[in-house]
Amino acid sequence: MNREYLINQVKKKKTFLCVGLDTDIQKIPAHLKALPDAVFQFNRQIIDATKDLCVAYKINTAFYEALGVKGWEALEKTVRYIPETHFTIADAKRGDIGNTSDQYAKAFFEMIPFDAVTVAPYMGSDSVKPFLNYKNKWTIVLGLTSNKGSEDFQQQKIGEQFLYEEVIRKTSEWGTDENLMFVVGATKAVDLSLIRKIIPSHFLLIPGVGAQGGSLSEVCKYGLNADCGLLINASRAIIYAGHDENFASQARKIAGQYQIEMERYIVGM
Amino acid sequence: MNREYLINQVKKKKTFLCVGLDTDIQKIPAHLKALPDAVFQFNRQIIDATKDLCVAYKINTAFYEALGVKGWEALEKTVRYIPETHFTIADAKRGDIGNTSDQYAKAFFEMIPFDAVTVAPYMGSDSVKPFLNYKNKWTIVLGLTSNKGSEDFQQQKIGEQFLYEEVIRKTSEWGTDENLMFVVGATKAVDLSLIRKIIPSHFLLIPGVGAQGGSLSEVCKYGLNADCGLLINASRAIIYAGHDENFASQARKIAGQYQIEMERYIVGM
Repeated sequence: MNREYLINQVKKKKTFLCVGLDTDIQKIPAHLKALPDAVFQFNRQIIDATKDLCVAYKINTAFYEALGVKGWEALEKTVRYIPETHFTIADAKRGDIGNTSDQYAKAFFEMIPFDAVTVAPYMGSDSVKPFLNYKNKWTIVLGLTSNKGSEDFQQQKIGEQFLYEEVIRKTSEWGTDENLMFVVGATKAVDLSLIRKIIPSHFLLIPGVGAQGGSLSEVCKYGLNADCGLLINASRAIIYAGHDENFASQARKIAGQYQIEMERYIVGM
Repeated sequence: MNREYLINQVKKKKTFLCVGLDTDIQKIPAHLKALPDAVFQFNRQIIDATKDLCVAYKINTAFYEALGVKGWEALEKTVRYIPETHFTIADAKRGDIGNTSDQYAKAFFEMIPFDAVTVAPYMGSDSVKPFLNYKNKWTIVLGLTSNKGSEDFQQQKIGEQFLYEEVIRKTSEWGTDENLMFVVGATKAVDLSLIRKIIPSHFLLIPGVGAQGGSLSEVCKYGLNADCGLLINASRAIIYAGHDENFASQARKIAGQYQIEMERYIVGM
């Protein structure tokens, strides 16, 4: 998916919500658990119930890998079920030396047709660049994450700036706003203004709204740009809104609340 | 596997070689390619041919993920085929916020019975610690990697020290030399003396000997400790030593050369 298409989807649907499919087999409703493809069946109903309220789905690969081969099957089936109108993200946080990153890119862009994959920057340029070789595919590099541990290294100073600033600044030179996005945790909304000075036009993937406690209005205040430039992810707050047969309609209800709030921030766009 | 067992294996077999199963379906001999489980059949023969010459196998997950569900099956089958006497490493470079790292730990320590998994440190403590909760399982954190891109961030200075030193120093406080190792690229052998000052007793996983150009004697000079303390990985140099029906005996030949050289460095241990 290219940038223009994504922006048009945001404008048309008046939402920049990304629904995170962190589907934990332990947490899905009891009536689904016995099904042979329980995880996919759960995802399918969540997708059906939320697709007009969001522009993207983010699949957290860890939850699928924890189920072994069956999980990988559910992952693949889920991606293929998501409508082509929606931006699909493998939240996989991959990254390795060049010839290995090539294989990860193949895994998530060819073998499974994701639009984007999240990538950890620690190993530097040759670990990131193989993902950038695909037309209309996206690399979403970890900038500043929403967890407590972001203080350990990301928020250490390299000279005058934070490591996360150096990561964003340097990485942004390896691609363009047509193939690169950055992960920026919603719990650090004020840092967004700092980040927007470095990358005014790139899309940012913002996790941490909802269960992790970030504020949507704060994020929009500092993070929105002329093309929207934000994908706000909510996972647990949406997919586990309900715990019984009504889980999908409960998920829809919460996704709808996000959409209504988001529409306010992009009025006139 | 606990530390004592691993050290005993090194002493008994007089080798600290780790064979890297970066099995690329494009590169395996033609006569195997047509088999339905070609990757596993290749691995099986490599394991049979090298197991008395090495103490560990490292599986580079990217090469398996690039094959989708079938690759994940081959990965699982391979791990279960490796003798229990051998230390098994998922070279997966995972790491995410706490509840997600929990799932990755489950994937590689429970669903597939690896002894160790490589972890990227960028997201900090809560991304690493969930892996440390398993008894007799190991977390191998990226310290200084062997690729060119290690200059981009790892070798930047935070105050008086390099980022990779800060990563090793801080991370070493989250575990012990009984559950933590570090990845240190063999192309930076002199940096090993710096690293050994921070973590004298931890095992180091050293990739980059062989195809990536590192020198075994240099690595041993600066990296060995009283318990050996090194696992030296070679992947392509061993598994692609031959290209036809004799690939396994060719692999054995190269692994044997490593073992003979290694024995020299740990004589009397």
